[in-house]
Amino acid sequence: MSKIGTRISVIGVGSMGGAVAARLIETGHEVTVWNRTASKAEALRERGAVVAEDLAAAIDASELIVILLLNYDIAEQNLWPLAAHLRGKTVVNLTTGTDVQANAWAEWAESHDIAYVDGAIMATPDLIGHDEALLLYSGLASAYDRHLSILEQLGTSQYFGPKPGTASLYDTAMLTGMYTMFTGFLHGAAVVAKDGLTAVDLAAGMSQFLGAMAHALPHVAQVVDSGNFETGTEQTLDFTANALDIIAANASSQDIDTSLLDLLRGMVERQREAGFGQHDFARLALSFTKE
Amino acid sequence: MSKIGTRISVIGVGSMGGAVAARLIETGHEVTVWNRTASKAEALRERGAVVAEDLAAAIDASELIVILLLNYDIAEQNLWPLAAHLRGKTVVNLTTGTDVQANAWAEWAESHDIAYVDGAIMATPDLIGHDEALLLYSGLASAYDRHLSILEQLGTSQYFGPKPGTASLYDTAMLTGMYTMFTGFLHGAAVVAKDGLTAVDLAAGMSQFLGAMAHALPHVAQVVDSGNFETGTEQTLDFTANALDIIAANASSQDIDTSLLDLLRGMVERQREAGFGQHDFARLALSFTKE
Repeated sequence: MSKIGTRISVIGVGSMGGAVAARLIETGHEVTVWNRTASKAEALRERGAVVAEDLAAAIDASELIVILLLNYDIAEQNLWPLAAHLRGKTVVNLTTGTDVQANAWAEWAESHDIAYVDGAIMATPDLIGHDEALLLYSGLASAYDRHLSILEQLGTSQYFGPKPGTASLYDTAMLTGMYTMFTGFLHGAAVVAKDGLTAVDLAAGMSQFLGAMAHALPHVAQVVDSGNFETGTEQTLDFTANALDIIAANASSQDIDTSLLDLLRGMVERQREAGFGQHDFARLALSFTKE
Repeated sequence: MSKIGTRISVIGVGSMGGAVAARLIETGHEVTVWNRTASKAEALRERGAVVAEDLAAAIDASELIVILLLNYDIAEQNLWPLAAHLRGKTVVNLTTGTDVQANAWAEWAESHDIAYVDGAIMATPDLIGHDEALLLYSGLASAYDRHLSILEQLGTSQYFGPKPGTASLYDTAMLTGMYTMFTGFLHGAAVVAKDGLTAVDLAAGMSQFLGAMAHALPHVAQVVDSGNFETGTEQTLDFTANALDIIAANASSQDIDTSLLDLLRGMVERQREAGFGQHDFARLALSFTKE
């Protein structure tokens, strides 16, 4: 287990990296920072960070290297040439990217004797250090365990196993739910606006309603995992088809584009055509899997 | 104001109509019921309902007529021929339908001296009588006010003004948010399933995350209503485009269909091409409005 006073280098101190570095200083660690634009690193000096002369010096200063650059390409350009400096150390890469990129980094790291953990942050920078910040990790279990007491200082930590890309997949799955929910709200706001209601009027009911619906997700998930969609629910695909028809009719009467609704309706229709009209709505989970 | 003991007829006592009738009996009203399939009405007799011989008798028995039939076509076939019986009474139509259908009913009612309120129920039958049941109303204000003390027995009542279709529009706007949110979750579940995680694994994080995001809707709504999308947020359309690219890359790497993501990405791209890449994500509310 790493302890108070562990030497940590934070590579990339933009808004998120800066928040991470500040939190690690606050919790008693020796933090070295490096940034492509040096001025951002300078702001952390007065908070107690060591500002490295160059990236190699930043790596040499610590045993744990946390990367928070803009994207994986930039991270690769800067860090891969310095593999020899990273040998024997742990890299926790919190840069936002895909599972394929995470896998490529893990392969590169293994070939250079670097312990590699990939991760994703579900939080705004101001939440770093609070339980509400959710940090997702996957990759080398021994490296994660060794530094868990440090990582837990950043927020709620969750480990998803040894496959490096899993944290990224979980992260983007969550974001899919967020973007579709927000898009659905904005669609609804466009519909009621034509009738004279404001988006605030709609949000008043919608925030409560969707909050309640969000808490129903574990139940929906159990149906998905069971693989048995004959649940006897009223929320069948036939019921959903009728509901989507009414929803689309209302959007059309208000001159609102129905492409989003049409896409959902098409998914439902293909399931019904395959004979699953009386199956639970949750069956749509199967509609996304390519044959 | 109508009082305890008001005579109410409930037309259509399937699962929702039956729950409404039972609740009105429970709160001390004289309830007459009619149903196309008589056996469902019979079940309410022992709870204290009068079972009408025919629909005309059901209408004649009461001053307030609550309609909860399967759809507006069935309601029209049964009730419009009996307009003379309805003269001077109040009809509250809680049948699920479109704003166009609500408007047609209001017009018909006005031409026959019938006070008309249209409505929609956001609840399952077991919630009727509890605050969690949300009942949306629009139409003739005087009729709504006269019977509000009765309607409030069914759940939380909200009135949206005199246009008969507004309750239906608000209802379907809320449902749009629900269906898109659930679809986004099921999409995410399909992605992580390929990597070995269960839908329950995803729901554990997603229910909390989307619950929190649902509470952010009023803030998003304020941005929409302001019409000013240069909010200085990090959640710009450029940011969203990059996030959606990463989300879609992860879906693709897991062989998951990206049609839903592609549709969102296309909307974002059209806004960016129009020069709004640095505008707030909430600007997508404008993307649904046909030119």
